[in-house]
Amino acid sequence: MFGDNSCPPPCNTLGFLQKNNSLDDKGRLAGQKNLLSCDNSDRDARFRLTETDFSNLFARGERHPLTRHIKNTSSFTGAAGVTLVSVSLVGIKSTEGLYLLPAKNGEEPTIQFLLEMVDILTNYVKKTFDRSTKVLDFHHPHQLLEGMEGFNLELSDQPESLEQILVDCRDTLKYGVRTGHPRFFNQLSSGLDIIGLAGEWLTSTANTNMFTYEIAPVFVLMEQLTLKKMREMIGWPDGEGDGLFSPGGAISNMYSVMIARYKYFPEVKTKGMSAAPRLVLFTSEHSHYSIKKAGAALGFGSENVILLSTDERGRVIPADLEAKIIDAKQKGYVPLFVNATAGSTVYGAFDPINEIADICEKYNLWLHVDSLVKQPQYIKTYIKLCRANSVTWNPHKMMGVPLQCSAILVREKGIMAGCNSMCAGYLFQPDKQYDVTYDTGDKAIQCGRHVDIFKFWLMWKAKGTIGFEQHIDKCLDLSQYLYNKIKNREGYEMVFDGVPQHTNVCFWYIPPSLRGMPDGDERREKLHRVAPKIKAMMMESGTTMVGYQPQGNKVNFFRMVVSNPAATQSDIDFLIDEIERMGNDL
Amino acid sequence: MFGDNSCPPPCNTLGFLQKNNSLDDKGRLAGQKNLLSCDNSDRDARFRLTETDFSNLFARGERHPLTRHIKNTSSFTGAAGVTLVSVSLVGIKSTEGLYLLPAKNGEEPTIQFLLEMVDILTNYVKKTFDRSTKVLDFHHPHQLLEGMEGFNLELSDQPESLEQILVDCRDTLKYGVRTGHPRFFNQLSSGLDIIGLAGEWLTSTANTNMFTYEIAPVFVLMEQLTLKKMREMIGWPDGEGDGLFSPGGAISNMYSVMIARYKYFPEVKTKGMSAAPRLVLFTSEHSHYSIKKAGAALGFGSENVILLSTDERGRVIPADLEAKIIDAKQKGYVPLFVNATAGSTVYGAFDPINEIADICEKYNLWLHVDSLVKQPQYIKTYIKLCRANSVTWNPHKMMGVPLQCSAILVREKGIMAGCNSMCAGYLFQPDKQYDVTYDTGDKAIQCGRHVDIFKFWLMWKAKGTIGFEQHIDKCLDLSQYLYNKIKNREGYEMVFDGVPQHTNVCFWYIPPSLRGMPDGDERREKLHRVAPKIKAMMMESGTTMVGYQPQGNKVNFFRMVVSNPAATQSDIDFLIDEIERMGNDL
Repeated sequence: MFGDNSCPPPCNTLGFLQKNNSLDDKGRLAGQKNLLSCDNSDRDARFRLTETDFSNLFARGERHPLTRHIKNTSSFTGAAGVTLVSVSLVGIKSTEGLYLLPAKNGEEPTIQFLLEMVDILTNYVKKTFDRSTKVLDFHHPHQLLEGMEGFNLELSDQPESLEQILVDCRDTLKYGVRTGHPRFFNQLSSGLDIIGLAGEWLTSTANTNMFTYEIAPVFVLMEQLTLKKMREMIGWPDGEGDGLFSPGGAISNMYSVMIARYKYFPEVKTKGMSAAPRLVLFTSEHSHYSIKKAGAALGFGSENVILLSTDERGRVIPADLEAKIIDAKQKGYVPLFVNATAGSTVYGAFDPINEIADICEKYNLWLHVDSLVKQPQYIKTYIKLCRANSVTWNPHKMMGVPLQCSAILVREKGIMAGCNSMCAGYLFQPDKQYDVTYDTGDKAIQCGRHVDIFKFWLMWKAKGTIGFEQHIDKCLDLSQYLYNKIKNREGYEMVFDGVPQHTNVCFWYIPPSLRGMPDGDERREKLHRVAPKIKAMMMESGTTMVGYQPQGNKVNFFRMVVSNPAATQSDIDFLIDEIERMGNDL
Repeated sequence: MFGDNSCPPPCNTLGFLQKNNSLDDKGRLAGQKNLLSCDNSDRDARFRLTETDFSNLFARGERHPLTRHIKNTSSFTGAAGVTLVSVSLVGIKSTEGLYLLPAKNGEEPTIQFLLEMVDILTNYVKKTFDRSTKVLDFHHPHQLLEGMEGFNLELSDQPESLEQILVDCRDTLKYGVRTGHPRFFNQLSSGLDIIGLAGEWLTSTANTNMFTYEIAPVFVLMEQLTLKKMREMIGWPDGEGDGLFSPGGAISNMYSVMIARYKYFPEVKTKGMSAAPRLVLFTSEHSHYSIKKAGAALGFGSENVILLSTDERGRVIPADLEAKIIDAKQKGYVPLFVNATAGSTVYGAFDPINEIADICEKYNLWLHVDSLVKQPQYIKTYIKLCRANSVTWNPHKMMGVPLQCSAILVREKGIMAGCNSMCAGYLFQPDKQYDVTYDTGDKAIQCGRHVDIFKFWLMWKAKGTIGFEQHIDKCLDLSQYLYNKIKNREGYEMVFDGVPQHTNVCFWYIPPSLRGMPDGDERREKLHRVAPKIKAMMMESGTTMVGYQPQGNKVNFFRMVVSNPAATQSDIDFLIDEIERMGNDL
């Protein structure tokens, strides 16, 4: 039917065009927008779907959900500014009728489909930043598995129509969590940066692989330049050194341990751990569990990851490190590696890098810094990152870059290739016409490697270094605001004294029923259950989310982190109000 | 200036509306589309950018690149079907004037910006499938680093305007490689699946993390159901078992080695490799280098990854495996793990899984299968995947899912948590209100884990199992077509005899100057240089891309793989024509 390329696609023969759009109408449309923004319609639409008769586009002579949906919403004229006149997707089937690209005549339905998707996504983006929407619409696993309002997660042998696919996409977002919502404080990776988002869309569209310059020339160079810039900010001379973007901070930390081992015992690469003495690693009892995981995975054994004691603020006590190094040596172990944390997960603590670096130099150990944040004022105040042998730097945390975006940075140039390369001839041919030192794949433990650099590069371009700094400053200010608000407030106890070192504010909410109770097991047990209960209520009401956890002998407490650029003081106020509202009767 | 929320955003006051769009115009627009598709304009635009006076939107009183661009292109009326009337982004600054969300009044510029980006991306998608466009516009690293036509890769402290950001995005795509182009055959991960692309856009917009059900409820369940479905297809009873999506096949293979070690020597997790005897791993000399990398990383040592001999078709010789197991045992090593490959990287060879499984059972070894493809006919013909203890399955290869999408599947339930969990209380609280067995994070070696499932789930919904099978069948047919075309053609020699087991077709092109030359070192040396030279010419002309490599004692040959759904017989013909055109005078 549509085999003739010169024939306009059948969609063009429909009545899809927008009427009455002239300059004279701008006031009307603008007015309508205000009307629309007051109702709770699901489609405060940027795109206008016209009242088209779709019946001749039905491939199977039946009405599909999307049709009804369009019929219901087509009376909305879109907000002014941009108007999209769209033909319906009804009738675009994967199995019959029109097909998507690369099919012949697939361009029209493809663009239509993508624009419908963008309509869904831009609506989601708008709602994400809208405080009148919920952070989440919580359901238990069994509820979602049973199929919420026809949302069927099961896969089948037969294809679904594209209308259903779009419905599936709406449902996926509907039952998900808005991690960019101004009141989502659950994780340090929060917020929805628009430039980062656009960068990810481009990355997906380019759909390539970082392993060779050959198929990712621009991205490989962006990675190289960005890593150099990051090394300059760390303070290594001329930004020289090595590095890669890896799929997350845990893998970056794992790289650091592998590289340290290769530096001191290169024969382990070929001969295994039996070629080395019994090695031990050191990290804070407050550090991220990934160092322990790396120790287990790489063959050191988790027991040989020795945990360092911390002060009341969660910072490693340097004397404890030195004592444990000496102790390990006396027991016949060989200390290899120290992980220092610049911004610990729970307390946001900064280990005293300078003192730790002194000890590492004295005992000839590799110093890695697992760094939450790169910010000049922190470098001055707490840390001398340049003294590290390697640094994990996660732009997907405080810098607000979409997940995944983590870099491992190493001071010694060329060591990653030494550590990891296997010289697979089928991938990394030495006889290419370009400078193959740009092929980075062989220094990774991955083969295919996702393009994580572009969104970060694009955000850096759009914000400048200064923009990242302003963002982090704003988050720190908000944390300070929270700290000041609750430190002396009735019903709150801080987990540690003094101003937090980073955005982390750790506190207990004490319900009225516990306020007069003397300290002891009963109170501890009751208090331990308060944060989980409040959190469950938050999730079920969908109003906000904040993390909690125990730490050492401290019962469950809230850990507030701020990294979301959408958050304001009013959101902090809201969180406190919610905690008190929910916790008052516990 | 725009501080009043009730006031329509200033963009609305512009003359942006499309004129003369009525039902009567559909023919004219449709006709124009045909006209447009004959010209080589950069903007065979889906979106219509109107001839708006943008001067009052300049924040800094100067013209920016995007303005000129819009001025230049605004005379194009868009293709029929969808028309987007867009206001310009000029004047939307990160530093002054309007701001993107989460700024007040940021909704309008945000949606505008995202739609501009979508315009760029949909144009790229169209060109990707257009055979009249190049696969790539090759430049050497130093050329791109010097800045092509103002494309500046360097980062700075100060922000760039959003116009410049959009120009940067266009340039990024311009100097990249179109991995979805019908004539891109360079890697097995090729093609641009529209559903997969849409899925990635949604994933980016949702921007969450797989580690807990709490913040990724829908995605966690999709992963669980999809993994179960995959295990059912492998043939494990009731689809029971374990698994995860990981950032690529190399990491999936690494998981398999870790899990095997944990199964036989669980104490290694805590005590390190010194708690185990000296372990050896086996894999084909033709297998992916990731097994060797895993051996090096995990502390076995790459020398303890023993390479198995293959037959002339690149398949492991089972007797060689058994001999090497016996030999290792005699030397005091403990054989632990065998990797069998179902679809090797270069030859596309399928190791004889059944015989290998027999040997693994006899000697009590872990059998892992690194599987290129999951397809019923292959399971019947070559492989009994269900006999494996673990399987790597990469949907980003033959199934055409965008990178990254790889799963590690394990027959034994619960073993991944046993192997990897560290029970970090700050992340995986046991006292949540929902069933925390859905929190998958602690069985991964990653902490943050990117959502790789959604695009795959969505493609599976849209295509059905049947759609994936049809796609793979089509790729196999095309490879067969290529094989039949060149097997007896003058100037071609096949690297191995017989019909390829998979889509891989490995061949030498023999230029006329070498055709009469007797075999020997001189011919081998010259032939070794032919494929790199042709490949360089391909890249410089930008017409097509295909991989080459040496293998063992075989000099450089072309390895053709077909996984791109856009490829047709005419593209195979084109490739052969190009090779002959470029190679004729070598």
